[in-house]
Amino acid sequence: MKLHERLMEIALNRSFLIPSCEIYGTVGGFYDYGPVGCLLKRKIEERFRQFFIKKDGFFEIETCSVLPLPVLEASGHAKNFADPMIKCKKCEGEFKADELVKGVWEKPEELSKLLKQEKIACPNCQSTEIEPAGWFNLMFKTNVGPVEGNTAYFRPETAQGIFLDFSRVFRNHGTKLPLCIGQVGHSFRNEISPRKGIIRLREFTQMEMEYFFDPENDKIDGFAGVEHEQMRIMVAGSERMQKMSIKEAVKKKIIPNEIMAYFIAKQMRFYIALGIPYEKFYFKKMGKKDTPHYSRGNIDLEVETSFGAIETVGNAYRTDFDLSSHSAKSGVDLKVFIEKENGNGEGKSEGRKVMPHVVEPSMGVDRLFWCILEHTFREKGNGKEWEWFDIPPIIAPYSCAVYPLMKKDGMAEKARAVVAALREEGIDAAYGESGSIGRRYARADEIGTPYCFTVDYDTLKDDTVTIRYRNDGGQERVKISEVCGIVKENLKKGRVKLNG
Amino acid sequence: MKLHERLMEIALNRSFLIPSCEIYGTVGGFYDYGPVGCLLKRKIEERFRQFFIKKDGFFEIETCSVLPLPVLEASGHAKNFADPMIKCKKCEGEFKADELVKGVWEKPEELSKLLKQEKIACPNCQSTEIEPAGWFNLMFKTNVGPVEGNTAYFRPETAQGIFLDFSRVFRNHGTKLPLCIGQVGHSFRNEISPRKGIIRLREFTQMEMEYFFDPENDKIDGFAGVEHEQMRIMVAGSERMQKMSIKEAVKKKIIPNEIMAYFIAKQMRFYIALGIPYEKFYFKKMGKKDTPHYSRGNIDLEVETSFGAIETVGNAYRTDFDLSSHSAKSGVDLKVFIEKENGNGEGKSEGRKVMPHVVEPSMGVDRLFWCILEHTFREKGNGKEWEWFDIPPIIAPYSCAVYPLMKKDGMAEKARAVVAALREEGIDAAYGESGSIGRRYARADEIGTPYCFTVDYDTLKDDTVTIRYRNDGGQERVKISEVCGIVKENLKKGRVKLNG
Repeated sequence: MKLHERLMEIALNRSFLIPSCEIYGTVGGFYDYGPVGCLLKRKIEERFRQFFIKKDGFFEIETCSVLPLPVLEASGHAKNFADPMIKCKKCEGEFKADELVKGVWEKPEELSKLLKQEKIACPNCQSTEIEPAGWFNLMFKTNVGPVEGNTAYFRPETAQGIFLDFSRVFRNHGTKLPLCIGQVGHSFRNEISPRKGIIRLREFTQMEMEYFFDPENDKIDGFAGVEHEQMRIMVAGSERMQKMSIKEAVKKKIIPNEIMAYFIAKQMRFYIALGIPYEKFYFKKMGKKDTPHYSRGNIDLEVETSFGAIETVGNAYRTDFDLSSHSAKSGVDLKVFIEKENGNGEGKSEGRKVMPHVVEPSMGVDRLFWCILEHTFREKGNGKEWEWFDIPPIIAPYSCAVYPLMKKDGMAEKARAVVAALREEGIDAAYGESGSIGRRYARADEIGTPYCFTVDYDTLKDDTVTIRYRNDGGQERVKISEVCGIVKENLKKGRVKLNG
Repeated sequence: MKLHERLMEIALNRSFLIPSCEIYGTVGGFYDYGPVGCLLKRKIEERFRQFFIKKDGFFEIETCSVLPLPVLEASGHAKNFADPMIKCKKCEGEFKADELVKGVWEKPEELSKLLKQEKIACPNCQSTEIEPAGWFNLMFKTNVGPVEGNTAYFRPETAQGIFLDFSRVFRNHGTKLPLCIGQVGHSFRNEISPRKGIIRLREFTQMEMEYFFDPENDKIDGFAGVEHEQMRIMVAGSERMQKMSIKEAVKKKIIPNEIMAYFIAKQMRFYIALGIPYEKFYFKKMGKKDTPHYSRGNIDLEVETSFGAIETVGNAYRTDFDLSSHSAKSGVDLKVFIEKENGNGEGKSEGRKVMPHVVEPSMGVDRLFWCILEHTFREKGNGKEWEWFDIPPIIAPYSCAVYPLMKKDGMAEKARAVVAALREEGIDAAYGESGSIGRRYARADEIGTPYCFTVDYDTLKDDTVTIRYRNDGGQERVKISEVCGIVKENLKKGRVKLNG
């Protein structure tokens, strides 16, 4: 059994994931988050907000998923966001062309020729009677209101909402560049062949940011603080993994500017803080073929997993492509007036109009979620029968658990009071009274709970409880009155062991 | 100008709301949340999670928005979730029938007759040549995958995802009733005539919970703690507002059981904590006409606003309707085995199979958001030129703001260090250095910021700053090292004035 098969089984049994509409037989590409997974997912999203948006004083917005046709004509999605398809004449199965055929083609005839040359067989029924079946647009289409003809799509990315709202946010918040706006939300792609668990989903969550800046000033506050961060990077065309500082990468024009370099440095710190080891991910400078015509540089972050390397972040220097396209299509001038500041910041209103440029760091939540499961999965015991997750405390689904040793003699009541106090402080605390205490510790480990508190007979005498640390099973005795403080302090420190 | 017109203008100018796709002319029924509104919305949702879900040890899940046809056939939405429509033969305008015609009809012929009798005119062109135009299903329809015929809809409520995942959550979490599962997420309704700002949206956010219980035991932990809460209630058929304890309401069978009564008590506390005064909302026991056939009692919460009274919460005792429907449609038995516990909780595995019953408290986020704006809006100054929001500190978009008196002499650097420290602690802190300090205080008030810290010349000498309280403008001097602690403490206490 491959690691990802085992992990998916574990994820289902421990309430990380639930196949959507499971009782109806499920539909490919849709997964729900169960109680444990939902806690983990929220914490990943909250960490993103704190670290990428709030810490830097950036803005978050929430925009609608439904977008009318003109928006997606301007963005290029209506025309270009499509996959070439192949259909089997025998079994009528439909497949993504580029998954079956290696090689280059642009027209159906070329693809048809290639299919015959390479003797490609249907993956379903092995027939070789397969043929090109056109391009399939990957957006979910619908209609707004009762009158037909008001075509709309469910957004394929959260980014477009940010471009649409840019001018109002700019006006309302001081009319200054740079301006950075982020969004966390669902996006929808009608994939032809969804697969690999939650790696390629039809409904998924993105954490995107658009950093709008004056193209004559592509510097960013904070770059000096991270310029020496060492990145692992592979440049398309070369298989060689290089290690260099982000400053050097900017100098060598591998990274197009300091703004993208700044976000790359933060992505490294973020991934490490969330449990992905430094040596398990790297950046990939995309070649010309994989870089859109308007982009001045695309750099992905890839994580090694049991599925192989998967892209979890895309960084793109989109220039003014989106704002210019929406300006042209909507007829609204999205250029902004930049004041020229003199020494003391109080001068006449001199300046110029510019169309802001954009650097976009785009992160997938679901893929990161999966990578965290893969890289924090551990086994212990003689027969490795104890499977657990070494999830960093700050994002552990439950920060702690509280157990009465037994239900009787008032221990359950006491334990419930402890868990109530923790919850009152906003701490995610699990509670359980069934099964032996050892079994309950095991269950806590299985979902990555870093701290367990146990109420026993001594508690009834002296108001102390046992705290047990996940990673070494070490235990010590602490006062009930200090429990909340200890959890908060430990979460901050990331402490997972009693000893060391 | 009506209050809601003024408030919408304010909401747009201060980044609470942004009309979706504004630069393209907007589409009715879609609003985005701007940077300020997004902060407020997140905090409302987070308060819901803490107060309704986590505090009681309930579970949250996140399920997909896209649901295949069979799910919505089982739930009844495919057939019944529709509005009757009227079409004008002259201008081709389409309208919701029940907005134009009062009276009772069930078939097109009856409606047609009524239209003529009452001489109803087209609201658009005043023609009386209008006629029934069938029923319009309010769900957004789409297709999954490249093969046509895989009809799916975007969920009209978050509840269905919870019913679909119930059995797995039940199995994974101790196979015990009661079990309560909540969800916060977008839902979609293709309204014929969206209106009233964000009151009737086509894409909106719900906070729903399904409380699954053994129909032979409709008690709930915690009821005793809230049974004396006094509710204001109107029973359909009577215009009289009554005040009674929830315990009495259960006794009089106005509330169907203690479970719903418990949630009603919590809703009262929640609304008051979020800034809706007790006397501005009430509950409404729905009459037979507005209660679905399967329900044993629907009780809405309505808030008085400048739009009139609007429903913001729906509580429904849905019995086993949903689980039974999904069982029948999917062929999966959703009944659960309930063990019979003996005195010390350790007996043989005796018990019985039951189909759980459900009480559903369903809350709308957008409507609550709007009600908070309406009920916390304040004016001051001689000509009432100072408009501000008395938003409770715990949900204020920014918890505080930090300003340097002037940019020069190192005050800006010092102020930036203070704001960085606050953000490091996870506190939402705004920063601003443009405009007079009075103007900046006014801007903070305008979005409900409860505390402002000002760095001035004294700060450079003694590391103290001024804290200004929103509601009385009162100021005092505090140490920089204590700023984070003061904000956290004040948020917890809800302090908004220096004096009193």
